[in-house]
Amino acid sequence: MIILLKPEATQSDANEILDQISSLDLKPLYMPGIERTVIGAIGDERKIAQLHLENHPMVETITPILSPYKLVSRELYPEDTVVNIDNIPVGGDNFTIIAGPCAIESDEQLYKTAEIVKEYGGHCLRGGAFKPRTSPYSFQGLGLKGLKILHNISVKLNIPTVTEVIEVQDIEDIEKYASAFQVGARNMQNFRLLKALGQTRKPVILKRGISATINELLLAAEYIVDEGNPNVILCERGIRTYETATRNTLDLNAIPYIKQHCHLPVIVDPSHGTGVRSLVEPMSKAAVACGADGIMIEVHYNPKVALSDGQQTLFPEQFRQLLINLKPFIKAAGKKIQY
Amino acid sequence: MIILLKPEATQSDANEILDQISSLDLKPLYMPGIERTVIGAIGDERKIAQLHLENHPMVETITPILSPYKLVSRELYPEDTVVNIDNIPVGGDNFTIIAGPCAIESDEQLYKTAEIVKEYGGHCLRGGAFKPRTSPYSFQGLGLKGLKILHNISVKLNIPTVTEVIEVQDIEDIEKYASAFQVGARNMQNFRLLKALGQTRKPVILKRGISATINELLLAAEYIVDEGNPNVILCERGIRTYETATRNTLDLNAIPYIKQHCHLPVIVDPSHGTGVRSLVEPMSKAAVACGADGIMIEVHYNPKVALSDGQQTLFPEQFRQLLINLKPFIKAAGKKIQY
Amino acid sequence: MIILLKPEATQSDANEILDQISSLDLKPLYMPGIERTVIGAIGDERKIAQLHLENHPMVETITPILSPYKLVSRELYPEDTVVNIDNIPVGGDNFTIIAGPCAIESDEQLYKTAEIVKEYGGHCLRGGAFKPRTSPYSFQGLGLKGLKILHNISVKLNIPTVTEVIEVQDIEDIEKYASAFQVGARNMQNFRLLKALGQTRKPVILKRGISATINELLLAAEYIVDEGNPNVILCERGIRTYETATRNTLDLNAIPYIKQHCHLPVIVDPSHGTGVRSLVEPMSKAAVACGADGIMIEVHYNPKVALSDGQQTLFPEQFRQLLINLKPFIKAAGKKIQY
Amino acid sequence: MIILLKPEATQSDANEILDQISSLDLKPLYMPGIERTVIGAIGDERKIAQLHLENHPMVETITPILSPYKLVSRELYPEDTVVNIDNIPVGGDNFTIIAGPCAIESDEQLYKTAEIVKEYGGHCLRGGAFKPRTSPYSFQGLGLKGLKILHNISVKLNIPTVTEVIEVQDIEDIEKYASAFQVGARNMQNFRLLKALGQTRKPVILKRGISATINELLLAAEYIVDEGNPNVILCERGIRTYETATRNTLDLNAIPYIKQHCHLPVIVDPSHGTGVRSLVEPMSKAAVACGADGIMIEVHYNPKVALSDGQQTLFPEQFRQLLINLKPFIKAAGKKIQY
Repeated sequence: MIILLKPEATQSDANEILDQISSLDLKPLYMPGIERTVIGAIGDERKIAQLHLENHPMVETITPILSPYKLVSRELYPEDTVVNIDNIPVGGDNFTIIAGPCAIESDEQLYKTAEIVKEYGGHCLRGGAFKPRTSPYSFQGLGLKGLKILHNISVKLNIPTVTEVIEVQDIEDIEKYASAFQVGARNMQNFRLLKALGQTRKPVILKRGISATINELLLAAEYIVDEGNPNVILCERGIRTYETATRNTLDLNAIPYIKQHCHLPVIVDPSHGTGVRSLVEPMSKAAVACGADGIMIEVHYNPKVALSDGQQTLFPEQFRQLLINLKPFIKAAGKKIQY
Repeated sequence: MIILLKPEATQSDANEILDQISSLDLKPLYMPGIERTVIGAIGDERKIAQLHLENHPMVETITPILSPYKLVSRELYPEDTVVNIDNIPVGGDNFTIIAGPCAIESDEQLYKTAEIVKEYGGHCLRGGAFKPRTSPYSFQGLGLKGLKILHNISVKLNIPTVTEVIEVQDIEDIEKYASAFQVGARNMQNFRLLKALGQTRKPVILKRGISATINELLLAAEYIVDEGNPNVILCERGIRTYETATRNTLDLNAIPYIKQHCHLPVIVDPSHGTGVRSLVEPMSKAAVACGADGIMIEVHYNPKVALSDGQQTLFPEQFRQLLINLKPFIKAAGKKIQY
Repeated sequence: MIILLKPEATQSDANEILDQISSLDLKPLYMPGIERTVIGAIGDERKIAQLHLENHPMVETITPILSPYKLVSRELYPEDTVVNIDNIPVGGDNFTIIAGPCAIESDEQLYKTAEIVKEYGGHCLRGGAFKPRTSPYSFQGLGLKGLKILHNISVKLNIPTVTEVIEVQDIEDIEKYASAFQVGARNMQNFRLLKALGQTRKPVILKRGISATINELLLAAEYIVDEGNPNVILCERGIRTYETATRNTLDLNAIPYIKQHCHLPVIVDPSHGTGVRSLVEPMSKAAVACGADGIMIEVHYNPKVALSDGQQTLFPEQFRQLLINLKPFIKAAGKKIQY
Repeated sequence: MIILLKPEATQSDANEILDQISSLDLKPLYMPGIERTVIGAIGDERKIAQLHLENHPMVETITPILSPYKLVSRELYPEDTVVNIDNIPVGGDNFTIIAGPCAIESDEQLYKTAEIVKEYGGHCLRGGAFKPRTSPYSFQGLGLKGLKILHNISVKLNIPTVTEVIEVQDIEDIEKYASAFQVGARNMQNFRLLKALGQTRKPVILKRGISATINELLLAAEYIVDEGNPNVILCERGIRTYETATRNTLDLNAIPYIKQHCHLPVIVDPSHGTGVRSLVEPMSKAAVACGADGIMIEVHYNPKVALSDGQQTLFPEQFRQLLINLKPFIKAAGKKIQY
């Protein structure tokens, strides 16, 4: 940790801070300069963070040296982690297709859509039973009834399922009825939820918050892993920028960046990441190419009647074409084609 | 609602959409142009939203005419709403000072700080018992124990209190021990929490999400009011931008914009909004000047030892000076000085 | 154009605006609603823009129907435009590699680097003679001397060249010594420069501004084409967001979005778009996959001694590997491999 | 400067870098840690920047200690600089009102508007002769003819003038006809223009770029001062964020931040900073309150017919009220009221 003092800091300010660092059995470094004094602290940065030196009125800035996450870091575990959603592996040299409607609307809607997902090569079925919506006047999901529909279809078609968890109290039901949890962008920093999910052993697909930095995403994953659940899959789904031509700006830089710094699998959601149906296929290809371990796609047997996010949802024929057109890119990326 | 069709849309696509609009007893308008066809729908936009025309493959864009919120809109209630935190009015011609430490750390810390808040002219005491923290390795708050400390000091010093609510299950305890709820930026779109708070009648200070638009903030307030609780106070606390010199970018544009479009009181949190101790006073003055109904300030009897957000926390003497220096601006703004 | 009036607008305000629209021989549409009045104007939106109805105090918002650009739009020219940099085609089914150092530093540096570019399969050599730098204390480029070095090496190695133009007065020299102009991100809205480049016939690589929307990029291209030069190549090079892990956020959404709305070729600069050497290869693959017509890469015979942007500049061996590893993706994208 | 090496860096990499630092007669510091090695370099950071250590493949990050600007820094000159626009002082305890139309449209338009500016208390007249416009189909300004109109009215009404300079070649004309240069947001990093303005002695109002950081603005000012012209006035005019309710997000945090770090005067442009007429007055008050040295306001004798930016331009009566309503805030801020 590097501590830059203000120009008006005195020798006694510096000594006070050096003593605090020594008191934790860390090694302090004193670097007086002509214009400014710099102090270094060598050792465990999580330990030195307890001193809250940023509060000191004579401290101008503090620069950490190490990344704030540890368990999810590739420095700690250099190998790729593979997370299994039931019998479907995510990560390593697998490329996984998770698809389905934004929201579960009815038994018929989900069944028809799940058949399409399965037939054209999808590995997991997604569908939301609990829907967080910006407006109180929008469709809010079927709740527990939706979960049961999801479960029945999962059994009938033998396909693993992913559904969004919004609150700690839903965990038990979802654990019973679905194969994996999805944490939505709005809940990426719902730390109680993360901790509670850390107590389970089911896979958690953790979506990046709409204005979360990559480091904040990795710290959120750290919460889950730190509680004991290593089965975390990260998901890039677009960030909020000034650009309005697309609903979000899909930040694909994040994929190789995360792959280089973290051992967890990373997938991409080009449906939310663009918000535009015609951009889903090209951005799925780009996701494969830059190293993603899978994609999560919104598809509906008839998007014209979808109750949410219809404008970014693929028609069945578009989904079929997408999977066909992805194949050469998956092969070029050195991943297995499992469909 | 204005619906722009794609260039390749046919007459029959237009007719299909016109029929759907008519089917809801709304008035459709057909505007064929040389390059594009435009369709209008006159009437309740919340009704027409049910058609999900954005899903139609021949629809290029949909532009709503009316604002998506209703109950919080000044078009509906032109007068200023005044919300009372116990006996302290917020809104109208009042200017309210809410102050205290970021987190409740101990009985002694809160008592010493509360004395300062009260003595120098603060109206309400703030302090967090439940702290959502980006890193799992940071201080997470005292929980219920903290709430009880807050309550005791509130009684002893006769000062109303504000504390953050993180989850539905905490509502009951907070309702018992504090005068008002605070919804943090990370929970602005935690819709279950908003709905549950709508079931109470205690004031809710709703902070703007770190990347929420002003319209999203107003829609979040609509959730609470729609459930029956009209006592909502909005709070601007800085948004996330590319600028790194400050922790957040305090968006003061939002204050007059909200005052012109919404009847609820609006306060400003310059501590989080800047993240820099020396910017708190000037930005508090600016908040007064552009029409805010109050400020929420972080102060600590000794910020050097604060367990969170110390670098933006005022020293007691800075807090005293701030309130003295704010007075002429409060007067210039035509607000009452109550301290 | 759709004009939404304020709630307090009267019938006479509406009539005033309807008359103005009629006066231009456009077709006005009057849509009185219960809560608001909406007015439509059907016809050439550039014509109606002259009325400056946005200035009217009773106008709340104006929503254009048509895109503001015309000449670069695919609605006008549905076919892909192919632009030739000397004998190198950009666009259509070609995939073009433009590479070289950020700045021309010396004859030796450029020659050594150009040999590498050419040997490993690059089609065009890039190198800046005029460098706009954030700090006055950074290296500012060799100027005319650099241009001459670029020209000599172009002739010796028979490779077309691209160099940045900063000001109108440099156009003549660059036209003489280089094969194509590059307009940097900072000059994307230097409209005089764009107009002057519109008077030439040499290709212009127009980089997206660091906070330009896609529509603003297309309007900037419109400036050049409108003056008579159709040879414009667009370049995505990353936008400024709140994310700090990477220097910029490469917005690959822009590639398929532009390809769907505009007939000009689009290339990607993953060196500036990420600012991180190890992200250049994966993001180059992603660029190919989502439909880019080429990439622009920073490479240096010895990046350790580069005078600018060295941290994002590839070592020769990295560049060689990049071109080898790109091949299967170029093939998967259905583009010709010309190296 | 603090240099963090990658985990895989060897002792010999560290030695190589330490030797380079020593070779410049700077003091190197070697801090080997358990997980990482950190190297410090004490001395002039502009000198060490020549080493381009960021290019080294074993360097992970470089953190500068000192601010990159020097001449504009308050560390160097602790006193407020006062810049005179003809006889009008800007900075210190003065509060200056610069007002006028966005663009000079005709002799009559500017005269009528200038009379209003002068009569109600404005100190300087603004008006653009050269207008950079996003669309090639918008009004581009009267050019030299506009400058002459500006000059005549300046003489007739005895009021100093400010006008935008777009290109080096315009400097001579503007120097002849106007009292001060304005550099627009799009040209904040047009470094040749900045250098050329550094050769003059007329005041330069330097507007912050639409996505420029505060540090980049200060570095741009440094360019001008470094060339010999100390008469620079900074101007905050709103930055681009994801928020769409306002045209830009006026970043008032920047005002006290700049006042604390830089000795130059800073003014605020709430017309562009909000893009909304009704927000101009409240944000002008906020600008005063947080320490701005002046405001730049768009006013027009009849905004309904303005050829550019009419929706943010004040009507004469609004301008009159603004100046009246500002007075108590200017007084509260301890500034002189000169009108």
